[in-house]
Amino acid sequence: MRVYLSGEIHTDWRDAVIAGCEGLDVAFDGPVTDHAASDDCGVAILGAKPDKRWHDRLGAQVNAIRTRRGIERADVVVVRFGTEYRQWNAAFDAGMAAALGKSLITLHPPEHGHALKEVDAAALAVCEAPAQVADVLRYVLTGALPAA
Amino acid sequence: MRVYLSGEIHTDWRDAVIAGCEGLDVAFDGPVTDHAASDDCGVAILGAKPDKRWHDRLGAQVNAIRTRRGIERADVVVVRFGTEYRQWNAAFDAGMAAALGKSLITLHPPEHGHALKEVDAAALAVCEAPAQVADVLRYVLTGALPAA
Amino acid sequence: MRVYLSGEIHTDWRDAVIAGCEGLDVAFDGPVTDHAASDDCGVAILGAKPDKRWHDRLGAQVNAIRTRRGIERADVVVVRFGTEYRQWNAAFDAGMAAALGKSLITLHPPEHGHALKEVDAAALAVCEAPAQVADVLRYVLTGALPAA
Amino acid sequence: MRVYLSGEIHTDWRDAVIAGCEGLDVAFDGPVTDHAASDDCGVAILGAKPDKRWHDRLGAQVNAIRTRRGIERADVVVVRFGTEYRQWNAAFDAGMAAALGKSLITLHPPEHGHALKEVDAAALAVCEAPAQVADVLRYVLTGALPAA
Amino acid sequence: MRVYLSGEIHTDWRDAVIAGCEGLDVAFDGPVTDHAASDDCGVAILGAKPDKRWHDRLGAQVNAIRTRRGIERADVVVVRFGTEYRQWNAAFDAGMAAALGKSLITLHPPEHGHALKEVDAAALAVCEAPAQVADVLRYVLTGALPAA
Amino acid sequence: MRVYLSGEIHTDWRDAVIAGCEGLDVAFDGPVTDHAASDDCGVAILGAKPDKRWHDRLGAQVNAIRTRRGIERADVVVVRFGTEYRQWNAAFDAGMAAALGKSLITLHPPEHGHALKEVDAAALAVCEAPAQVADVLRYVLTGALPAA
Amino acid sequence: MRVYLSGEIHTDWRDAVIAGCEGLDVAFDGPVTDHAASDDCGVAILGAKPDKRWHDRLGAQVNAIRTRRGIERADVVVVRFGTEYRQWNAAFDAGMAAALGKSLITLHPPEHGHALKEVDAAALAVCEAPAQVADVLRYVLTGALPAA
Amino acid sequence: MRVYLSGEIHTDWRDAVIAGCEGLDVAFDGPVTDHAASDDCGVAILGAKPDKRWHDRLGAQVNAIRTRRGIERADVVVVRFGTEYRQWNAAFDAGMAAALGKSLITLHPPEHGHALKEVDAAALAVCEAPAQVADVLRYVLTGALPAA
Repeated sequence: MRVYLSGEIHTDWRDAVIAGCEGLDVAFDGPVTDHAASDDCGVAILGAKPDKRWHDRLGAQVNAIRTRRGIERADVVVVRFGTEYRQWNAAFDAGMAAALGKSLITLHPPEHGHALKEVDAAALAVCEAPAQVADVLRYVLTGALPAA
Repeated sequence: MRVYLSGEIHTDWRDAVIAGCEGLDVAFDGPVTDHAASDDCGVAILGAKPDKRWHDRLGAQVNAIRTRRGIERADVVVVRFGTEYRQWNAAFDAGMAAALGKSLITLHPPEHGHALKEVDAAALAVCEAPAQVADVLRYVLTGALPAA
Repeated sequence: MRVYLSGEIHTDWRDAVIAGCEGLDVAFDGPVTDHAASDDCGVAILGAKPDKRWHDRLGAQVNAIRTRRGIERADVVVVRFGTEYRQWNAAFDAGMAAALGKSLITLHPPEHGHALKEVDAAALAVCEAPAQVADVLRYVLTGALPAA
Repeated sequence: MRVYLSGEIHTDWRDAVIAGCEGLDVAFDGPVTDHAASDDCGVAILGAKPDKRWHDRLGAQVNAIRTRRGIERADVVVVRFGTEYRQWNAAFDAGMAAALGKSLITLHPPEHGHALKEVDAAALAVCEAPAQVADVLRYVLTGALPAA
Repeated sequence: MRVYLSGEIHTDWRDAVIAGCEGLDVAFDGPVTDHAASDDCGVAILGAKPDKRWHDRLGAQVNAIRTRRGIERADVVVVRFGTEYRQWNAAFDAGMAAALGKSLITLHPPEHGHALKEVDAAALAVCEAPAQVADVLRYVLTGALPAA
Repeated sequence: MRVYLSGEIHTDWRDAVIAGCEGLDVAFDGPVTDHAASDDCGVAILGAKPDKRWHDRLGAQVNAIRTRRGIERADVVVVRFGTEYRQWNAAFDAGMAAALGKSLITLHPPEHGHALKEVDAAALAVCEAPAQVADVLRYVLTGALPAA
Repeated sequence: MRVYLSGEIHTDWRDAVIAGCEGLDVAFDGPVTDHAASDDCGVAILGAKPDKRWHDRLGAQVNAIRTRRGIERADVVVVRFGTEYRQWNAAFDAGMAAALGKSLITLHPPEHGHALKEVDAAALAVCEAPAQVADVLRYVLTGALPAA
Repeated sequence: MRVYLSGEIHTDWRDAVIAGCEGLDVAFDGPVTDHAASDDCGVAILGAKPDKRWHDRLGAQVNAIRTRRGIERADVVVVRFGTEYRQWNAAFDAGMAAALGKSLITLHPPEHGHALKEVDAAALAVCEAPAQVADVLRYVLTGALPAA
């Protein structure tokens, strides 16, 4: 099963999900999580731009090559919303995943529940902790539930 | 041409876009913009739920019937990001629009440019004012540009 | 908006939904609700068959011309499960609607909730009364909620 | 060839089909067949819910991650209808399979033929015994027919 | 409902179907039925070709503009196989219709049943007379069966 | 029938095709043919850019809203290659049309035949004069051939 | 590359194509070529039917499981029309292949050219001998042309 | 990741891209780059044609078997526009790639920027040198940026 891990890049939630899936037949994809590289990849490769908006545009488009492939190949897209930043790209990925018919899992603190209600409504599981994401994936693949 | 106006519901930007398109053959759709009705539609019709999350889920799903139809029928999806609220639903709509191959136009203050760079990178026009959205639609339909 | 009304044909729930939508811009489709005609249409037109299974097959295929067109053209598919018969065709229609990305509304007594949990999980609204279906459609089209 | 085995979980029909396909290049998928785990997976992972309907909803959605992937990846979907329970989820899976263009095989006692006529009409083979399903798969892959 | 009438062009079966549908809301499409025009349209418009195969290719491609549009827009594709000519183009149209998910109706004498078994197996109704085609369309649209 | 007229904007070939289709039920679309407006639409609406490449990008993206809609709605896409300019956008439109399964008609002088062989190979008619395009459309819609 | 070899089952043309592709990375699929097994597979597995039409229907549907999978997985579909039988199933397969966007190659004696002009017009190569089919596949994969 | 390298066949840009991707998990496809073989493959296999246009047509169609498969299988399509020839086939490939939702990278000298603005506007990266293409692919797969 291919799983795309979208969203927050400043905490180690991806590592926690991956660790929780140890022994499962899951291939994980995700965005480049080096913030500086992700922001500057466009101009670093294609040349500096004086206009910040074009600088951002070039980088976002290069990242989109990776992001779209990851989402399109995925069986399951997990989208993490943290407590910082606006994270519109995470919600954008969730919208793409929903429109493409991917199984969507959201991961966020309960206090974001109201603000994320449209996104959660498109999800097949709404998790609060990375371990829950791993438990869902383990159950889906093996039928095993976590010990009570 | 069908245009879906997604996003911010607390300012009159939709009216401004629609007024700017006077005389054009455009049909506009959009979400229910009565905030209270939008939040409570699920329980108002289907019955009260003690759990806030289920309350939200019921409402978001009922709204999704309108939203998805509006986006799927649209030729152009305009997504407005204002200065308040997290507006994850707006970014979610933008992701759906992009995945469905709709022409996407974003509308937001320039200071949101960096946070919205992934969304803007999927857009065919990034506007700062509703009049620009109307000008784009007018040009696309008639070839006429705004007076210099 | 096109709405396909699938399922139970022995009660007047379709009339109730349609009456509840008075004044709305909704076009309704549905199966042939004359039970005898629906069962015998194949052999009535194409000739009698000695084998009951072939008799059934001919009829089911002729009805499928109507059913599939109705579902494919619909924005919303409402599926009613009553208290009699096995109604596998209703669940089959719901599965087609879900796979085609239609907005699905289910309508059934609460006591069927557990047996229908997989179908309800794919629905955007789960109703117990035809009036609720009409209320959902009215809200989706106009934003108006039923009087409290 | 990938084959998804949908439906009844209380008899050993899946084992019979798989045993009958010994030596063939077939990969089988199917739902979680532990009834209790399947019913409770949602709350076991995501937390208890006081409302039975939400309990069911959470579980059905988690199971849908597995079910939809299994059906979408399958070349052939076999749907078994037994003599107990309402089995609406089986008919729902059959509808999804038909809409997705999968080759559908049904498996049920002949006395269900009339009630299942719409489902059977979408199937490429209607079987009464698991051995017939295996015989169909063997013929499709190798051209070999069962000994007369 | 749009119905495409494919196949045999040397008898008046299309007139019979259309007459049988009097009063129904059906729009009929079909190929150009002037045999000489159909054969020569390519070179008549684009210039004579010395090579018969290119002559045929030019004409077949021009006709394909009409044929494919007719089939793609149709809800129902009726394919008539007569007793003369090889009619491979009729079977080709049937294959296109099946792959596009159109409701397929075949119309042919019973003696062609074995030779057409693969085509008939993809059809939702197999008719022997144009009146049966009209009866199917009338039932599908109105629920009315022919008088016994 | 909807026909999109793509390509060369400096001659009156569109007028000639349209005039040749007088009396036919054809709706024509096409790009903005005012060269200056087409080049400058982006910055005229969205604000001047110092970098010529961004200037061009903004304009091309705004024009794409019109172009893609026109091609996606079309039954037939006619692509004209003239004798001046590189006209890569015309070939790009042809590639889009082919990938979307549109009926493609090319229109160009015979001396471009070798350079356009890949594009012509995807076309259902290769014309040298606008009158031939009109003759093809007339035949496709009415079956009438030009007087010999 | 996957190649589906459709059509005539009474000559050794498949062996000739396969032999001509020796050393190439091609996987071949095709129908069951045992005529008796192909005709009787339905009743041999699912039970005898007194009605010849139903006998044929059951067999054709079982064969369709194999045929559709083979065509859907193929990159290239080769359809052979021989000099005997009506071969409507071959033309049906060609229509399916064309509608699914497969690269179509036809193989038939030149005297069938006029009767097959619609099918040939959808093909990317029209061959007269199996060796030509192999030569096309070899060139497509390796760029090597047959020795002059 | 699969990458299709389309366009110019007279310089060694493909070798440069491939060399720059050393060590990456990338599979490259592309057209036959032997100009004479590419021009003559049709008649070399299928027999000489006196008419140059048919000669070209046969060859272009045989090449299309390879080209379309390469583009359809690709995650990323790179299209190179050189300084010679009209290269309409390169722009045609770019249009196909865009319509199929492939990530498009263009590669051309900056002086072609204005003439290619519609193609570049559909691209996720616009490169001037093969090394930049390789850098984009390396970053997309590994997150590594070129040394400053």
